[in-house]
Amino acid sequence: TARNLLLLPGDGIGPEAMAEVRKIIAYMNEEQAAGFVTDEGLVGGSAYDAHGAAISEEDMAKALSADAVLFGAVGGPKWDDVPYEVRPEAGLLRLRKDLELFANLRPAICYPALANASSLKPELVEGLDILIVRELTGGVYFGEPKTITDLGNGQKRAIDTQVYDTYEIERIASVAFELARTRGNRVCSMEKRNVMKSGVLWNQVVTATHKEKFSDVTLEHMLADAGGMQLVRAPKQFDVIVTDNLFGDMLSDVAAMLTGSLGMLPSASLGAPDGKTGKRKALYEPVHGSAPDIAGKGIANPIAMIASFAMCLRYSFNMVTEADRLEKAIANVLDKGIRTGDIMAEGCRQVGTTEMGDAILAEFKAL
Amino acid sequence: TARNLLLLPGDGIGPEAMAEVRKIIAYMNEEQAAGFVTDEGLVGGSAYDAHGAAISEEDMAKALSADAVLFGAVGGPKWDDVPYEVRPEAGLLRLRKDLELFANLRPAICYPALANASSLKPELVEGLDILIVRELTGGVYFGEPKTITDLGNGQKRAIDTQVYDTYEIERIASVAFELARTRGNRVCSMEKRNVMKSGVLWNQVVTATHKEKFSDVTLEHMLADAGGMQLVRAPKQFDVIVTDNLFGDMLSDVAAMLTGSLGMLPSASLGAPDGKTGKRKALYEPVHGSAPDIAGKGIANPIAMIASFAMCLRYSFNMVTEADRLEKAIANVLDKGIRTGDIMAEGCRQVGTTEMGDAILAEFKAL
Ligand SMILES: CC(C)[C@H](C(=O)O)[C@@H](O)C(=O)O
Ligand SMILES: CC(C)[C@H](C(=O)O)[C@@H](O)C(=O)O
Repeated sequence: TARNLLLLPGDGIGPEAMAEVRKIIAYMNEEQAAGFVTDEGLVGGSAYDAHGAAISEEDMAKALSADAVLFGAVGGPKWDDVPYEVRPEAGLLRLRKDLELFANLRPAICYPALANASSLKPELVEGLDILIVRELTGGVYFGEPKTITDLGNGQKRAIDTQVYDTYEIERIASVAFELARTRGNRVCSMEKRNVMKSGVLWNQVVTATHKEKFSDVTLEHMLADAGGMQLVRAPKQFDVIVTDNLFGDMLSDVAAMLTGSLGMLPSASLGAPDGKTGKRKALYEPVHGSAPDIAGKGIANPIAMIASFAMCLRYSFNMVTEADRLEKAIANVLDKGIRTGDIMAEGCRQVGTTEMGDAILAEFKAL
Repeated sequence: TARNLLLLPGDGIGPEAMAEVRKIIAYMNEEQAAGFVTDEGLVGGSAYDAHGAAISEEDMAKALSADAVLFGAVGGPKWDDVPYEVRPEAGLLRLRKDLELFANLRPAICYPALANASSLKPELVEGLDILIVRELTGGVYFGEPKTITDLGNGQKRAIDTQVYDTYEIERIASVAFELARTRGNRVCSMEKRNVMKSGVLWNQVVTATHKEKFSDVTLEHMLADAGGMQLVRAPKQFDVIVTDNLFGDMLSDVAAMLTGSLGMLPSASLGAPDGKTGKRKALYEPVHGSAPDIAGKGIANPIAMIASFAMCLRYSFNMVTEADRLEKAIANVLDKGIRTGDIMAEGCRQVGTTEMGDAILAEFKAL
């Protein structure tokens, strides 16, 4: 049976990073008959340049019918002034919304070889392994009204709306609890119930979901601002964090930076299992952005993109052994002291994007 | 001329910390004829217990007529289940809103004596001196609708609304630019213009305000999630950060924690200068919360409260020399190795709340 992948390399360093994943896919097809069938599309600024939209209808259709989407990165100064509706990010947001990818999994792990790269004291991040589960299709990202109105007299009024319904909170909480069971069995839910009504409802629904179906998991609640503090103070206290779209955006970026492994962190965005087939729509993307300053130079770190493909093997195709092997290959290459410029350290060997990809593939083959 | 202060010690460690400020006020009145006239009120849980509201109308009237309000902290597990409208935080939010305290100044400084207490590597925080200017009366904190609606079928819908008008952004940006001129002359504005319409307007108005009136100040824009990352990665790159109410809440807490001096950080919340008298309404409060776990034990760190009073001297009464002296007194006491439990370090002498207050007062007298 074919495994259908849509590759959307996007802008900036996206295409370079994606090229390294292609090599791994080719190897798995040739040597392991993995049966990946890849198609390709444009997203972000490159789609705007080609079609005048951040993603074309044709590519959206491909995304909807693929088993999984691999996404690079979008954006860059070239498109800073395009209209709001067609800005590069709009392509990503439309994919998330139309594919109903409500569950964004962002592991913040600290690769042992990189503990010193963190701005935190090494003992605070060594062995760090947090999973942030971020709600991705609701909240202030998509709520209406979302407008700028001219009030006259030189005054404008901008409105964004944070909306959450019970079912949206329940399903993301369930994902968090289920994943916690496969890990440390602890969930910390973060919101601002002291200021936001959506925080009040969030807190209630998470509490009720826990009580009804997941009382074996340890649940804690934290205000999101205190949560940000605690991430900086003592990140290892957390196992799974579940939070809304905007807090998740902020908190997962802070957590990613803490690890010192920003260029290395993958993410998965998952939909609900299909009633008949049990399949989930899914998109996998590195946490880092398009890094226009280093694009095209062959020096970008492809690890986050490769690690995103490992998540794809795990969550979309249940290829757990292969996913483990690929992750191990990344860790081994780091242990050997092979580094791209962003994670270069004394006594290590600095390589470019291609060499890093090759090294990981060689290790993957050997494992 | 009398200097009218309203003291609102609040809950938890608030009263203990405020007691140390009272000693300094008494000294300044007796020895320096400073002419402080203090009144007192209840806020938060203690107000709820007494009046069934998070602040009484009488105390609100006092706050409105005072030159400045000194605020301790609110909240605690005792009031976790009181109705939303009268929860402890509602008292603070009402003070901010009714006094129109739109400009929240949160310095994140690293006391040299405490650089090792940070979870960041000392070289990243030594000498850190950031000022976060947070919009405090707008955004998602106060926008309407702000509701939870029953949709039937066990479903509820929670809505919060982020609203910003041009004038609100203009006035907070102006405060940030003006303060930058007294410091490093650099402002970084943070929003999520790639996702939020309020971010788009924020970015436009800050840019226009800069161009019209403050083009001598260096202005940079950063997405708020990237800003959170940069705070963790290299906080010293910032001078003044200006941002909205909710991002300011998150980012200032992260910044505060970075310094390792959380128990030490003050804040000022200022209104617009009165058209006739030029006076600004103002409230000063420590960044730390009510810390119910250590309340009543005499071990709380009163430094943030005392430093908040120093900000009060500076911003409400233009007593710059006295403010400098009080801040110097705090730094000297720390240099001498006198510490409360929260900032205790090897080779230092651990003291309680009262002793710390006394030590700072003694130093203040001697300077
Ligand atoms: C690119 C942007 C729209 C996006 C977001 O805000 O969700 C990004 O910051 C992320 O975290 O994936
Ligand atoms: C207590 C709470 C309402 C408040 C806020 O969210 O503004 C606090 O976190 C703060 O930062 O002053």
